[in-house]
Amino acid sequence: MTETPEERAPAATGPAALPMRVPAPGLPSRVRIHEVGPRDGLQNERAVVPTEVKAEFVHRLAAAGLTTIEATSLVRPEWVPQLADAERLYPLLGDLTGVELPVLVPNERGLDRAIALGVRRIAVFGSATESFARRNLNRSVDESLAMFAPVVERARAEGIAVRGYLSMCFGDPWEGPVPAGQVVSVARGLYGLGCTELSLGDTIGVATPGQVRALLTALGAAGVPLSALAVHFHDTYGQALANTLAALEHGVTTVDASAGGLGGCPYARSATGNLATEDLVWMLRGLGIETGVDLAGLAATSVWLAGRLGRPSPSRTVRALNPED
Amino acid sequence: MTETPEERAPAATGPAALPMRVPAPGLPSRVRIHEVGPRDGLQNERAVVPTEVKAEFVHRLAAAGLTTIEATSLVRPEWVPQLADAERLYPLLGDLTGVELPVLVPNERGLDRAIALGVRRIAVFGSATESFARRNLNRSVDESLAMFAPVVERARAEGIAVRGYLSMCFGDPWEGPVPAGQVVSVARGLYGLGCTELSLGDTIGVATPGQVRALLTALGAAGVPLSALAVHFHDTYGQALANTLAALEHGVTTVDASAGGLGGCPYARSATGNLATEDLVWMLRGLGIETGVDLAGLAATSVWLAGRLGRPSPSRTVRALNPED
Repeated sequence: MTETPEERAPAATGPAALPMRVPAPGLPSRVRIHEVGPRDGLQNERAVVPTEVKAEFVHRLAAAGLTTIEATSLVRPEWVPQLADAERLYPLLGDLTGVELPVLVPNERGLDRAIALGVRRIAVFGSATESFARRNLNRSVDESLAMFAPVVERARAEGIAVRGYLSMCFGDPWEGPVPAGQVVSVARGLYGLGCTELSLGDTIGVATPGQVRALLTALGAAGVPLSALAVHFHDTYGQALANTLAALEHGVTTVDASAGGLGGCPYARSATGNLATEDLVWMLRGLGIETGVDLAGLAATSVWLAGRLGRPSPSRTVRALNPED
Repeated sequence: MTETPEERAPAATGPAALPMRVPAPGLPSRVRIHEVGPRDGLQNERAVVPTEVKAEFVHRLAAAGLTTIEATSLVRPEWVPQLADAERLYPLLGDLTGVELPVLVPNERGLDRAIALGVRRIAVFGSATESFARRNLNRSVDESLAMFAPVVERARAEGIAVRGYLSMCFGDPWEGPVPAGQVVSVARGLYGLGCTELSLGDTIGVATPGQVRALLTALGAAGVPLSALAVHFHDTYGQALANTLAALEHGVTTVDASAGGLGGCPYARSATGNLATEDLVWMLRGLGIETGVDLAGLAATSVWLAGRLGRPSPSRTVRALNPED
């Protein structure tokens, strides 16, 4: 009797490397994954990744079945040097059909650049808290909504769909816990401007499932339709997938994730950033929820990118499927 | 606008380093954590930990509020050299009052040793699959139950409570997915022998929430009471906490976890073993579920032990609470 069975167990490879499909009642039959690795993930990498590698990353993600891939950001190049190559990257993705390639746009200047590139979907980046709005956007929450208003209006006039990110929806490093009512207020503001999708971000990863349900319930009561909501969890405290399950149980069908768990957090050396797309897909596949994603192809993409970045993927599923990684 | 807020955010320390309490309907008000770090965690460590360090580990866990701490194993010393010091360790824990200190016992010889030590709780280690029973116990599932029968009977005659571990309840590295009916059959066998608690182990970490619910439902239908069930998840694919949430929603109130996520898995270099007690406590505390555990004290214990083991804790919560770790 060894009690250390794993030492002699075969590696999980091939068709066996998938969870058993056992649906749970009351969950959606299909989930759309909004892949944020190329933008939200890479922007936290210090070493600038070559444009060609980024283009190959997006192509590989699309080949693995992801249909919404946030490609880059049109902020001022000096603010996020990693994504300063947006004008060179975006045209390299023009051959991808059937794939949405949203781009982050901070203001009207960014929108001008997006329109010039032929972008069909953009995202604006708001905050649920005054502290983060001040620090990240250098203005109050109301002032940031005023800044977004003409962006959303002009985008819609151009037929461009707009997602609104809402960061610090559950906790804020300066303010502590964030009341649901405060999030609802900003969410209604963004929705009222014309954003057709709101991504509720747990930027510092502190949320737990009851808080997720309470916020979703409050948003519903305030008239924000469930179909307009996405959830965006970080795994800083290991809660991302449990929170995702709570959101699915509430009826959310759009989930943000980052291939390989890309996306750093200085609290916890490289290991805990965005929810890893692979960990999400493992759960969804086990639950019988369709995503269209080929898990093996996606994990191989993350292993490939980890090699380019020079460090292992923090995704547990990626590591489990690639024990030599 | 940086979109990299974490770079300038203050570290989460002090009283703020706790989740907001937002209960969710239908969950238990209290959960008993069965801490397995000193046994299930340490047995996977190659370098033998000094007995005095193990004793201090258990004392620190108790001081952090854990009330059930699986202390060691009475297998043959040559099989698990790390735990060969059980006879020296257990007496060092005699001053702990109000703390249950179960000990793993493989057979009647182990029970003799347990009785000699004055152990009041033991655990036997069974398998839901034939493949793992053969490899780990060198006998069939039925033969292993026959081996446990006199152990459980004699233990009960001595007033010693017996937990039955059921490993490979969801997937098996040789057999693939494990049908719920097969688990139910072995669970009924162990329960029928007189085990008062059954720990359902996802030894290779492949389970997803629907499979957890289906197994718990099947066990209930077969007459195994919910109060006798514990869940034991591994985080190999990052699913442990989501699966725990599903089990809590079903009504389970005993959850196994390992301080700091101690417990290796060769599929995934040191990073993915047992569910980390800290990650579990973060979620339970956020959900308003009482555990009696002081999260800061527990995380400090895991940081201390990680220092003794010479490598960082794989727990995301431990890392987040100790950014210098």
